[in-house]
Amino acid sequence: MPYETGNGRKLVIALGGNALGSTPEEQLELVQVTAKSIVDLVDEKYDVIVAHGNGPQVGMIKAAFDFSEAHGQDAPEMPLMESGAMSQGYIGYHLQQAVLCQVKTRNIMKSAATIITQTVVDAADEAFKNPTKPIGSFVTEEVARAKAAQTGYTYKEDAGRGWRQVVASPMPQRIVEFDVVNDLVEAGYIVICAGGGGVPVIEQDGGYVGVPAVIDKDRTSAKLAADAQADMLIILTAVDRVCVDFGKPTQQEIEHMTLAEARQYIAEGQFAPGSMLPKVEACLDYVESYPQGRALITSLEKAAAALRGETGTIISA
Amino acid sequence: MPYETGNGRKLVIALGGNALGSTPEEQLELVQVTAKSIVDLVDEKYDVIVAHGNGPQVGMIKAAFDFSEAHGQDAPEMPLMESGAMSQGYIGYHLQQAVLCQVKTRNIMKSAATIITQTVVDAADEAFKNPTKPIGSFVTEEVARAKAAQTGYTYKEDAGRGWRQVVASPMPQRIVEFDVVNDLVEAGYIVICAGGGGVPVIEQDGGYVGVPAVIDKDRTSAKLAADAQADMLIILTAVDRVCVDFGKPTQQEIEHMTLAEARQYIAEGQFAPGSMLPKVEACLDYVESYPQGRALITSLEKAAAALRGETGTIISA
Repeated sequence: MPYETGNGRKLVIALGGNALGSTPEEQLELVQVTAKSIVDLVDEKYDVIVAHGNGPQVGMIKAAFDFSEAHGQDAPEMPLMESGAMSQGYIGYHLQQAVLCQVKTRNIMKSAATIITQTVVDAADEAFKNPTKPIGSFVTEEVARAKAAQTGYTYKEDAGRGWRQVVASPMPQRIVEFDVVNDLVEAGYIVICAGGGGVPVIEQDGGYVGVPAVIDKDRTSAKLAADAQADMLIILTAVDRVCVDFGKPTQQEIEHMTLAEARQYIAEGQFAPGSMLPKVEACLDYVESYPQGRALITSLEKAAAALRGETGTIISA
Repeated sequence: MPYETGNGRKLVIALGGNALGSTPEEQLELVQVTAKSIVDLVDEKYDVIVAHGNGPQVGMIKAAFDFSEAHGQDAPEMPLMESGAMSQGYIGYHLQQAVLCQVKTRNIMKSAATIITQTVVDAADEAFKNPTKPIGSFVTEEVARAKAAQTGYTYKEDAGRGWRQVVASPMPQRIVEFDVVNDLVEAGYIVICAGGGGVPVIEQDGGYVGVPAVIDKDRTSAKLAADAQADMLIILTAVDRVCVDFGKPTQQEIEHMTLAEARQYIAEGQFAPGSMLPKVEACLDYVESYPQGRALITSLEKAAAALRGETGTIISA
């Protein structure tokens, strides 16, 4: 195809699901801002893979099915895997539409494509032994026990508020659709993929089978960036730069960390679990696997400026 | 990529949404059969694009959101376009998983990819002047009037059973993601796309905007087959062959029709509107646009046999 390419210069962007809102109306508005930032990076002459979260969106889908099923509507039990695949279509549709509009407006000869993505996890991953991540709606103990018997899923009592399905958060091993993503980005497409970290699947009987789990989208993005030998992994978050001594008088923004420095900060407990810690860890994964690569943590708004070295935190070997 | 290709021999298959069931459990079982038939065609040394319907699936999604919204759950109004994009992810995930399993089992060096697809329709299409296709749930007149005022959608009273949103069924003009579909199929991927005929969009302000409408998936498949210069368009249906004098003592299976013969049969009213007629019309569209092509109408089960000339109805110039 006659699309412009970055001549082998590739970026993987990991976009938070929270940046996309909780309703179709909100999302349609927010993707305009997101697409502008994505295409700013394309304008820096890079080929771009966009991986994204799906927390609020898969929650919205699961809630609609859970409610309809629980209230006697003729609705099926909608598993997390299928809800996740729906969220990939739903988010990808809005994102590709907004990205296409941006490239057309700027006369950039590129197109966009959303790839439904499965991510292989290890059935023996330790995380499956003690699933802890609650998903879906609260149900009564009776419903929880019946559902567990019917589906084999795990339900747990949640701080006196009722019972909820809990799932594991295993590590991504391999992106099933990696080849198509990489072929397309090298052909000049802006590729939207790995929504919600990818639908988790395990290898079974020569094929893949979906499992109810949640994969950290930053970890999947790191795997994608390493496999694609991307020049940079950009993890977008709410702040322009990673800080140490966060919230203290000695708080300091970090411009650059080596792997060794990042490991030292982690050992000191500088980064909050469930917040900055997994993002820094994903960056380490990528740089360890692909030492030529540089990881960047910054905000959506400052992404292009950070790519030019004006802000953001770089993690490199 | 080192994938096997059909050396330029391409097929477009139009698969009915009804063949995929109404629940995730049913669909996961039915896609095994479907994938077998699809990969039988791959085995005949063709590159394959799979376009599919989404009637029952988008209905299931819309119903879950409609019910949750109507019953005070904190659920947003989910428009038809976004529901359609969800159905593409949901169906594509199952289909690509099953197709991958089939190619692995048969040691075929091919992979599969689902592309979220938008189809451009003309905002001036006559169909928009009188939308007739009911979608979503029944509501009271009061709710219908409030929703119409809020969203601009059209609602109509439905035979004393309540009010329902009605949408147009415009003709597909162009598949936005045609390039990516064609690039991938030529690279040896089995491409799943154009779910539900594609999400209908109109061109506006240099970009695309979704519109609530339903595009006939056979018409979109015909456009896709003509644009891709596919050797064959295969429209799958419930019967092995098209018949004339259907249900009469003089009933006769048709092995082959020229364009002229097909037009003559249509003029005689041989094909039922809403059933075989639109399928034959889609075949005419394709063969008129690409006279080297041959269209085939047959059943899923007999698709490979029909490709070898053993059954099915061929329509050619």
